[in-house]
Amino acid sequence: MKSFILTLSCPDQPGIVAAITQKLAEQTFNIVDSQQYSAPETGQYFMRIGFDGDTTCARVQDLLADTASHFDMTLQVDDAAARPRVLILLSKFDHCLIDLIYRQQVGSLKMEIAGIASNHETGLHWAEDAGLTYHTLGGREAKVDNEAKLDALIAHEKIDMVILARYMQVLTPEFVARHSGRIINIHHSFLPSFKGAEPYSQAHKRGVKIIGATAHFVTADLDEGPIITQGVEPVRHDMDVASFIDVGRDTERRTLARAVRLLTERRVFLNGNKTVVFE
Amino acid sequence: MKSFILTLSCPDQPGIVAAITQKLAEQTFNIVDSQQYSAPETGQYFMRIGFDGDTTCARVQDLLADTASHFDMTLQVDDAAARPRVLILLSKFDHCLIDLIYRQQVGSLKMEIAGIASNHETGLHWAEDAGLTYHTLGGREAKVDNEAKLDALIAHEKIDMVILARYMQVLTPEFVARHSGRIINIHHSFLPSFKGAEPYSQAHKRGVKIIGATAHFVTADLDEGPIITQGVEPVRHDMDVASFIDVGRDTERRTLARAVRLLTERRVFLNGNKTVVFE
Amino acid sequence: MKSFILTLSCPDQPGIVAAITQKLAEQTFNIVDSQQYSAPETGQYFMRIGFDGDTTCARVQDLLADTASHFDMTLQVDDAAARPRVLILLSKFDHCLIDLIYRQQVGSLKMEIAGIASNHETGLHWAEDAGLTYHTLGGREAKVDNEAKLDALIAHEKIDMVILARYMQVLTPEFVARHSGRIINIHHSFLPSFKGAEPYSQAHKRGVKIIGATAHFVTADLDEGPIITQGVEPVRHDMDVASFIDVGRDTERRTLARAVRLLTERRVFLNGNKTVVFE
Amino acid sequence: MKSFILTLSCPDQPGIVAAITQKLAEQTFNIVDSQQYSAPETGQYFMRIGFDGDTTCARVQDLLADTASHFDMTLQVDDAAARPRVLILLSKFDHCLIDLIYRQQVGSLKMEIAGIASNHETGLHWAEDAGLTYHTLGGREAKVDNEAKLDALIAHEKIDMVILARYMQVLTPEFVARHSGRIINIHHSFLPSFKGAEPYSQAHKRGVKIIGATAHFVTADLDEGPIITQGVEPVRHDMDVASFIDVGRDTERRTLARAVRLLTERRVFLNGNKTVVFE
Repeated sequence: MKSFILTLSCPDQPGIVAAITQKLAEQTFNIVDSQQYSAPETGQYFMRIGFDGDTTCARVQDLLADTASHFDMTLQVDDAAARPRVLILLSKFDHCLIDLIYRQQVGSLKMEIAGIASNHETGLHWAEDAGLTYHTLGGREAKVDNEAKLDALIAHEKIDMVILARYMQVLTPEFVARHSGRIINIHHSFLPSFKGAEPYSQAHKRGVKIIGATAHFVTADLDEGPIITQGVEPVRHDMDVASFIDVGRDTERRTLARAVRLLTERRVFLNGNKTVVFE
Repeated sequence: MKSFILTLSCPDQPGIVAAITQKLAEQTFNIVDSQQYSAPETGQYFMRIGFDGDTTCARVQDLLADTASHFDMTLQVDDAAARPRVLILLSKFDHCLIDLIYRQQVGSLKMEIAGIASNHETGLHWAEDAGLTYHTLGGREAKVDNEAKLDALIAHEKIDMVILARYMQVLTPEFVARHSGRIINIHHSFLPSFKGAEPYSQAHKRGVKIIGATAHFVTADLDEGPIITQGVEPVRHDMDVASFIDVGRDTERRTLARAVRLLTERRVFLNGNKTVVFE
Repeated sequence: MKSFILTLSCPDQPGIVAAITQKLAEQTFNIVDSQQYSAPETGQYFMRIGFDGDTTCARVQDLLADTASHFDMTLQVDDAAARPRVLILLSKFDHCLIDLIYRQQVGSLKMEIAGIASNHETGLHWAEDAGLTYHTLGGREAKVDNEAKLDALIAHEKIDMVILARYMQVLTPEFVARHSGRIINIHHSFLPSFKGAEPYSQAHKRGVKIIGATAHFVTADLDEGPIITQGVEPVRHDMDVASFIDVGRDTERRTLARAVRLLTERRVFLNGNKTVVFE
Repeated sequence: MKSFILTLSCPDQPGIVAAITQKLAEQTFNIVDSQQYSAPETGQYFMRIGFDGDTTCARVQDLLADTASHFDMTLQVDDAAARPRVLILLSKFDHCLIDLIYRQQVGSLKMEIAGIASNHETGLHWAEDAGLTYHTLGGREAKVDNEAKLDALIAHEKIDMVILARYMQVLTPEFVARHSGRIINIHHSFLPSFKGAEPYSQAHKRGVKIIGATAHFVTADLDEGPIITQGVEPVRHDMDVASFIDVGRDTERRTLARAVRLLTERRVFLNGNKTVVFE
C-alpha cells in the first residue's frame, strides 16, 4: 500500500467528485483526505485528494485518463513520498537559504535540493557544508547567460520548483513564461504595500506599525504575481531600518518555508491572478 | 436549486467517499466544497460536503439511508440556509452576550437566538433591546430547578446548541449527559492552564506573558471538554489583574464567536476527547 | 495624593530628563512610570512620565514653566483620572461605535463620549440607548454646513478628540488643519495597501492572504496620516468580499479601540509624518 | 562619546529618578531612552536608562555609588556595545543552537558565544563550523562531573548567561542556586500547561488548538521559573505529534532568541517569581 496525492482543476460542472471517487473506489483505493473548491470568479473547480492504494502514479493516470479528458481536467498524480526537486536562487542574503537547507535536513520540508545558484558567494559555504552543488551566476549584465545556464540546469536536473530565496535580479518575461507556475519568490514586504526596491526603507519612512513578507508566484509583472502566503510582525517607533531588516529576516524565512511546504505538499493551485491553498 | 451541508462520521474503511458522492452525482447534485479526515487514534472517518441540488434534506437522508446503514454512519443533512436555534446562558458578565447578539444581527453568525437565561440581571437590558426572551434562573442553591427549567426550554424551543457565554454555575453531570455535544463553553484561560476559578488571577500570579481563552464542549469533567478553538493575547508586567480581565474580554468574545460560527456552519466534529474542525 | 501624566516633546539636547525630574523630586512627587525616545530623523525628544503627588495640573505647569520655556518644550500635564472628551463620527456602519460605547461603559476606555454625529441614522438607537446626544449631519453636498456644525460642537463641548469610526465623508483640508492632531480615523485596510474606496474589494481582487485595519491621524492628505496602530487577520481563498468585510469588522473595532486607549492614556506623539507610541 | 545602559532595582520610594538623572545631567550625559516600573506586589522599583557620555562604566558606578547605597539599589552600568558572554547547553536537538549561532553571526544577537556544552554530538558540527569550542558532557549518571565542569567553564570563561537551548538534563538545585538569575531555558510548551516530559505529546493528547514555547529563568523548581517571554502557533486536528514538534521547532527558536535579545539588551529584571521586561 502506498500513499498518493491527486490534484486537478477543470471548469466547474456537476459530477466531478463522483466521477473521480467512483474510479478510485472501484480499485478499492482509500481516500484519507480531500479538499475541493469551486471559484466563482473563474468558474474553475479545484480538488486535492490523498488516497492509499496498491498501485502506481502511471496506472492511476491511465485509470483517470478518460474522466480527465471528459471534464477537460488538468490532472496530476504524485507519489506522496516523492520529493519535488528544487533549485534555490539567492543573491547576498543567505538567511532563507540556510533555513530551507535546515528544514530539508530535519525532514520538515520534503524536497530534494537539486542545486543552488547565485550571483554572490555568500551561500557557497552553506552549500558545500550540505554537500549541494553551487552554481555561480553573473551580475545584472550577464542576464542572458544566467538565464541560459538556469534553463539548462532546470532541464538537466529535472527541477520541479525554482525558489527565489532573496534573489535580487529581475528575471526576463521570457524566462518567467517558460517556467510559469514553477517559480516562487519571497518579497520582503506585505504586498501590495512597498513594491520594488528597499521595501523596509519604504515601510520605515511611512511609519507602519506592522511589517511583513509575501511568498508569491513569479510572473512577468514584478511583485504582482499570485500570492501564496503572507507573514507579519509588529514593529515600533524606536526601531530603525536595520531593526526592520533584522525582524524581517525571521518573517521572510518563515513565510517562504510555509509556501514551500504548501507547494511540496501540492496544496497550492493557480486561479487566475490568485491562488487556491488547501491547508 | 438549494444549498445543503452533509456531515457524517463512521468507522474508516475504503469506499466511503465514492459511495456517498456517487449517490449525489446520480441526482446531478453539485458538490461545491468538501473536506474529510481519517483519525488514526480513533479509527473514525469524518466528512463534510457542501452541495447544491433541487431537493430537500429529508429526500437526501432517504437517498443515503442504505449507505449510512451499510457504513454505520452518523449522517446529517442540513439546509445550508437553516439557522441553528441557540440558547445563551450567562451570569454577570455580558460582553459575550452582547457580541453574540450583534454578530447575529449583522448576519455574521447565522443562528436564531431562541432565548437567553441567566442567574443575574445584567443581560436583561440587552435581551429586551434585541427583542429576545430572558429567562431568570436561580442561584447555586436552585440548581435542580434551574436545570429542569433549562431542560423544558431546550425541548420546547427545539434548541440545537446551548452556549455558556460566561455562565458561572457548574452544570450537573446528568444535565450535561442529556445534552451531550450540544453545550459549549468559553473558559477564560488558555486551557489546560489555569483550570477552575479566577484564571486571570492565577495567570497574573504565575507571571505569564500571554493569556488566552478556550471554547470547548462541556463534559461532566469540568474544563476538560474537547477544545473547539483557542485565542491568545500578549500581556505585560505592568498590567494588573483588572487589565488581564479587560484584555481577556476581547479574547473571550472573539474566541467564542469563532467557535459558534464553526458550529453553525457544521464544521466541528467530536472525535473522542478531541475535535475535528474543518476550516 | 493624586496621579498625573506629564507629556512633552522638544528638540533633543542633554539635561532634559534631569531638569524635569529634579523639579518633580523637589516637590517629593513620586515617578511611577516613564518612557522617553529621541527620534534621529527629526531630532525631537519625547517623554511621558506618570507620577503621584499632592498637587494640581496647573501647579505642575507653573512649576515647569521655566524649564519648558528653556528647552522649547511642548509640555502638558493631565490628571491621570481625567477623561478626554470625545466626539464620535460615523456613517452607516455602527460596529465601531457600538464597541467604543461598550468599552467606555465597562471602563476599558477612560473617556467621556460628549456626542455622536452622523450622516446616517444607524447609530441613533445606540446613542439613545446609552443616553448620548446624536447630531444629524447632511450628506456630501452639505459639507460646509456639516463642518460648521462640527466646529461648533467641538468648541461648545470642549472636545479633545474626534474619532472617525467609519465616517465615510472626506473632511476639508481646512477643517483638518483647524483640529490638527485631534482627529483619528480607522481605515479598513492595512495601509499603505488599498488606499481609497472599497479596500476589501481591492484586497479580494489582489488575492492577499492577510487583511488589516489602520488607525491613523487624519491629515489633509487622505489615507496618508501618521499611523497609530494596525491590526491584521488571515483570510482564505474561499472567502468572498462579504466575508472579508465580516472579518474586517472585528479587526477594525479592535484596532480603533487600541488607538483610542493609547490616546486617552496620552501614549501617542506626533513625530513628523509618523508617531511615537509608548506602550 | 559612548553609549551606556544603566539598570537598577530598589525598594520604591520618592526621588529615585531625580537622584539618578541629576547625577547624569551634572556630567552632561544625554539620556536617550528610559523605562521604569514600580511593582505593587513586591514594592520594588525597576529602571533602565540608555545614555550617551564621554566616560567609562567604572566612573559611572563611582559617580552613583552614594545614591545606590542611599536607596539600597542593585545597580549596574554596562557599555552598550559590550557583548555578554554566553554558554550554550544542548542535548540532541540542535535547532535552537543553530539559530542562536546564526543570529549572533549576522549581528542580530549582540553576544559572544564563549562555548557550547552538550551530552550529545549533534551540535558538534555546528560548533566547529562556527569556530566555537565544544565541551562534551556525560549523561544523566555523570551529573556531578558535568556540573563541576560547567562551574569551571563559567568561571574561566567569565560567562554572563547560560542558555539551555534544549538541554534535557535536570540541573541540581545547588548548581541553579550558584548561578541564580543567569540561567535561562526554553521549555517546549506554553507554560504552565504541559510541564515535564514530552509536552508536545501531552498537548496532542489534550487536543489543544494552539501550542507554544516558554523562555524562563531556571530555578530549583522545575518549569516554575520566572517567565521571560512566550510564543504560540496554531495547530490543527490533522497534525500528529511529529507535526507539533516540527511547528514547535520554529516557535522554540524564535521565542528563545527573543528572550536572549531582551537579556543581552538588559531589558529583563527578576521581580519575585515574575519578570519585568522593558521592551
